[in-house]
Parts: sequence; C-alpha cells; structure tokens
Amino acid sequence: MREVVILGIGQTPVDEHWDKSLRELAGEAILNALKDAQREEVDALYVGNMMSGILIQQENLGTLIADWVGLRHIEAVKVEAACSSGAAAVRQALMAVSSGIIDSAIAVGVEKMTDAKGTEVTAALATAADADYETTHGVSFVGLNALIMQRYMYEYGWKHADFAPFSINAHLNAITNPNARLHEKISEKEYASAKMIAYPINLLDASPIGDGAAAVLIVPKDSLRHNHKPLITIAGSAAASDTIAVHDRKDPLWLKAAEISAQKAYQQAGVTPQEIDFFELHDAFSIMAALSLEACGFAERGQGPRLGLDGSITRNGKIPIATLGGLKARGHPVGATGVYQIVESVLQLRGEAAENQISKARIAMTQNIGGSGSNIVTHILRREDG
Amino acid sequence: MREVVILGIGQTPVDEHWDKSLRELAGEAILNALKDAQREEVDALYVGNMMSGILIQQENLGTLIADWVGLRHIEAVKVEAACSSGAAAVRQALMAVSSGIIDSAIAVGVEKMTDAKGTEVTAALATAADADYETTHGVSFVGLNALIMQRYMYEYGWKHADFAPFSINAHLNAITNPNARLHEKISEKEYASAKMIAYPINLLDASPIGDGAAAVLIVPKDSLRHNHKPLITIAGSAAASDTIAVHDRKDPLWLKAAEISAQKAYQQAGVTPQEIDFFELHDAFSIMAALSLEACGFAERGQGPRLGLDGSITRNGKIPIATLGGLKARGHPVGATGVYQIVESVLQLRGEAAENQISKARIAMTQNIGGSGSNIVTHILRREDG
Repeated sequence: MREVVILGIGQTPVDEHWDKSLRELAGEAILNALKDAQREEVDALYVGNMMSGILIQQENLGTLIADWVGLRHIEAVKVEAACSSGAAAVRQALMAVSSGIIDSAIAVGVEKMTDAKGTEVTAALATAADADYETTHGVSFVGLNALIMQRYMYEYGWKHADFAPFSINAHLNAITNPNARLHEKISEKEYASAKMIAYPINLLDASPIGDGAAAVLIVPKDSLRHNHKPLITIAGSAAASDTIAVHDRKDPLWLKAAEISAQKAYQQAGVTPQEIDFFELHDAFSIMAALSLEACGFAERGQGPRLGLDGSITRNGKIPIATLGGLKARGHPVGATGVYQIVESVLQLRGEAAENQISKARIAMTQNIGGSGSNIVTHILRREDG
Repeated sequence: MREVVILGIGQTPVDEHWDKSLRELAGEAILNALKDAQREEVDALYVGNMMSGILIQQENLGTLIADWVGLRHIEAVKVEAACSSGAAAVRQALMAVSSGIIDSAIAVGVEKMTDAKGTEVTAALATAADADYETTHGVSFVGLNALIMQRYMYEYGWKHADFAPFSINAHLNAITNPNARLHEKISEKEYASAKMIAYPINLLDASPIGDGAAAVLIVPKDSLRHNHKPLITIAGSAAASDTIAVHDRKDPLWLKAAEISAQKAYQQAGVTPQEIDFFELHDAFSIMAALSLEACGFAERGQGPRLGLDGSITRNGKIPIATLGGLKARGHPVGATGVYQIVESVLQLRGEAAENQISKARIAMTQNIGGSGSNIVTHILRREDG
C-alpha cells in the first residue's frame, strides 16, 4: 500500500449557478486542481454526486466530466453514498492510487441543485433515507433530523438556544470565505426567531443547498521529486455504515458509523482527538454537529452543545469546526460537500486560508455524513514539512 | 499490489420480480456469494447500479443493502457508470482489496426496472447519453445504437440478416440457463420479421430489461489457506472512457474505450486474444456484439458479423460469446449486467456451467459497456489449479 498525498485542490463558489451546467462546475474545480498541482494529465476520475439522475436527468457522470475537461479515454466513474458521496469518491481515488493500479486520480464532488423546484429537491434528498420504510410514510429528510434533535433535547435537557453557537460560528467564518454561499453574520436573537422548518429545526439550524464543485488530485507520495508547497498526506481514511432507517437504531442519538470510522482513522494516523487541530464536520443541521463531536471523542455523550457554548469550536478554540463556514454557511451542494471539507482542510494545513487561517494547523480531520448518520466517511490529513 | 481471487459467486434469475424489492434481490445474490465462499463476514460492499434514484426513488444503496443483509457497519457505496456500473463496482472492489486497505469485498450489481412504466425506463436509460446534447433532441438510447448500426451496414455492406447469428446464439444458450430471462429458441425467419423498434434495430436485436442481482466476493489470493474449488484469479482489469455523445467521436464505428481497456487487460494478464477461451461481451444490441469483437482484436474492422456467420461465436466455436445467454437472452438488468458476466465466467472456469459448459475453459474475458460505448470495463479471469 502506497502512501498518498493531496497534490492539488480546486473549487468553485457554492452558489445558484444558473449560468453553469453540472459539467462546467465540475470542470472548473478539476482544472483548478490540476493547475494548483501544475499537472495536465491524470489517470482516473472519481465523481462524488448524489442526485444528477433525478434532478438533471444525467447519469454516466464520470464519462460526461472526463470528456468535458479533455481527459479523454481515462477511467471515470461516479460514486454515490447519499450526502457522503464526496468523501466516498475521495476514498475511492485514494484506494485506487494506494493499490498501485492507478498512478494519479482526481476526485471531484459536484452537485447541481438550484435549477430544480424546491419540492423536487426535497424529494431527491429523501432518497438518502429508506424509501420503503421512512419516506413513504411522509417523513422528509429535515423531518428525520428534527426527530433526532427533539429526542436529544429531551434526553439531555438542552434548550434550542444552546445550539445557537454552531450556526453563529459557521456564519461568522463564512464571511471571509469568497467561496461560501452565505456571507451574513447572525445573532442569537436572529437564530432564535428564524422561520421554523420542522420543529425544533429552524432555518438557521439547517444548511442551505447550492450548486458547486470541489476537486482534489491524489498521487503517491513516492512519485514526487520536488514540490513547492508543504506536502499534505492522507494519514487516515475510513468509512462505515449504520442502519439506513433511523428507527432501526438501538440508539438514534449516537452516530455509531462516525465513531467506527473516526476510531479507524485515528488508529491509522496514530493520533488522538486531542491532537486534531481543527475538524471539518458535517453540520447539515446543528444537531449533527453536536452528535459528530460526541461520536469522534471531542465531547462526552450528550455534551456536544457545551463545546459551542464555551467557545471551543471557534477559530481560536480548542477544536475549531466549520473554519470556512461549514455546511451551514459555505453551503451544502450535497455530493460536493465532502470534497469541499477536504479542500478547505488542505488550505488550512498549507497556511493558505487567509483571514480564516487556524494558527499552527498541522493535523486536520474531516467527516462527511450520508443519510441520517447512515453512511460516514472520515479522513485525517497531515502537513509534512520534511 | 495484492493479487486477488473471486472466491464466491451468487445471482438471482433475471425476471420481472414484482414480489421482490431491490434490497431483497441484492441480498439474495450477496448471501448466495457468501454461502458459495463459505464465509459469513465481509469488510466492504460495492453496489453497481444505475437507475435506483429515478426508478424507485432510492439512493444510498450501499447502506440500504449492507443493512438489509446484516452486514451492519461495514463500508458500503454505490458505483455508477451507466450500463457498465456492474463491472465498475467489481473493479472498485478489486482495487480496494488490492490496495491492502480492505481485506474482503463484495461487489453486487442490482437493478429493479420492471415496476416502472416503459416510458419511465426509456427516460432513465437515456440518462446514460448526453442530456444536453443528445437526449434533449429526442434521440433515445435505442435510437443512438440504431444510428450506429445503420452507418455500420452502409460503410461495410452488411445486411440486417447478417446480424442474426448473434441473437440466435444468445437465445440458444439461454435455454439451459435457469437464471436467464428468455428461454425461447429463435429462427432466422423470426429474427428477420421481428417488430421494428428503431430502424434497423428490431426487437430481436435488442436485449430485454429485467430485475436481477449478481454478486462476487473478492479476497486476496495470499489470504487463502485451502479452497475446495479451482481458484479464479482476476488476471486483468481495466476501464476507459470515450466521448459521451456519439456525434463527438471521430469514428463512431470503433469502440476506442473497448480497445484501450482490452489492450491493458491483455497486457496485465500476459495473453493475446487467441488465448481467450470465451468472451462474455456486451450484446445490448447486436451491433454492439460486432463492434466489441472488432475492438478487442477478434475480428478485423468491419468484419464482426463474419464471426457469427461462420459459427465462431457458438459454444464449440473459436471464440464463444454469450455462453449463458448474454444480454440478449439472459437479460440486461442494467447495473447488474457486468456482474452477471463475471459470475457466468466463473461458472464456466470452474466447470460448473452444466449443459452450457465450454470445454477446457481456462481464460475468460468479460466486457461491460456503458452508454453508447462511452464507458467500458474489461476483465480477464483465469483458472488456476496449482
């Protein structure tokens, strides 16, 4: 197994890109990643995407995008794991390169959502849940997360206001990220009075959808003769699943797949949670931020919101999260999100995060969650100066 | 890079399974494969599927199926590459195990098509083509293949009747395959007079859709202490893409991605086309059988139909194809097809193909084609008795 590095990164802003097609967005991110790495060729393409078949009547995305960017005849496939499709694509690229079968691979996450009607997007997002035993009963994806949040508040005694810091922190960090979807600072009062979506989840608990693409170029470490940037290695990578239906879980308030994948990644990287400098977690809803922090060992069970309330999650805190806005404010172009998390982590580790820079960031963790915690991919990245 | 073997195989009949859901079909194939290998556990699941989002409003198939079969918490994703999704999933499983990151992987191909209306299936199949530059102009997937076949007949002077042997051979071989969709012998006269779909493709040039699932268990060769069956190694595996739109190809009558992936697979396996004992090719339409034979070096350019006319493709011929019915008569449950091809090849190599057995079969080739030749995955399997 060869050690691999992320040599190039690229992204588009997350936005309503009504003037750009899916292939154009993906192409932009890929060409940016190749340019960043000063390469022109790549051997394989892994596309993270969830909803192109339903929303834009286009599958065969691997071919579509390889063709569009002029990487003609390379191997190219789409990888789907609901909202964790992006990180799953990165992991497939990593394994292809690790195996020695592929010498360089691009993983691009892309989603084109804002051309469709809201109801179509809601229906498409619901395909992450169990169509036969959840969705047919009328529960939407937000609804499932609302049930989890309500139970969590009941079990552990938190009030809705206690989740405010997650959203406030994300919005604050997004202001200086030019690629973020939202650039508005929000207050506790605004958080508390935002429009209700599915009780207790209101508009400021939920991440916005969007169009966007992010890409990484993965190559074997031993193939590099020289490099102008600090090397970013993938020190840990793991994925795990859980029951697809929330009601089938013994404990719906514990992200078992997050715990399993994080523990494996820690072990591979030889680090503990205390050594993680910042954590790009999957704050699709504020409750998910709390659950992710707990399952990965940053907070005790039921105590996730405390890290928001005591300031630990801010850029100068003990475990900064959503350092460039997170899903909440950078935006959540579903199949692209997991790759955005990794691209942003590389920016931080390289020291290229400008106003959002975390000081002395050397070890980063990313966690991409598919479904209501049913498919989770965790990566640990490390800056190597040697 | 570790050498890998196919230790277990499983399949369901291809049929209109109105009484079984997608997860049930996939589960049946997976449990059959585990039973065949005498295993109960596996580390990762790769699901080949193209249309579940559109046709049954279900994505997150990796999680769905892992959960259903009781392989809870394992890593699980869906791989999509249009009609080559099945073989693409096998290739991802192979790379995962080769890399050493995963110790055993199931690749299952599954598609559930017959619950949807015919027009919905036609629209879903069209997502393999270019939505912006082909499909919006009204050309269906059969239409694209019809254009290719018509040009081929014009360029090389073949008559429609010259393609008859491809369909006749496939139907004949399917009669004794209990898992095949169609069990009717057809005559030249029936072929010639079948209902026209898109000139010159008639009903007996086209493969039937269906519901079905097929699975393989992949493990490292060096992990095996003893085995009751002859070992089947994956000696060659390669994938390539082409332009997604047929009109963008310099030569729409040449499957460049088939040529590239076959040449790589030959090189890896250290064999020539002459050493291939049989070839499970992608006869979604009879024209595709001809083009595949040419691109892989079994026939000169424009001479594919000759191998049908001179009997080379029959079970006793020089290069048997569709030995258990092929797409034409075993059926084409799209995302599952590539795995069926590999499962059937393993049956032949093990000497377990009963009445369909190819004598002295030691080296098999499979080729799974996505889109109109835009995404192609080729495998070479070898029987090892040592």
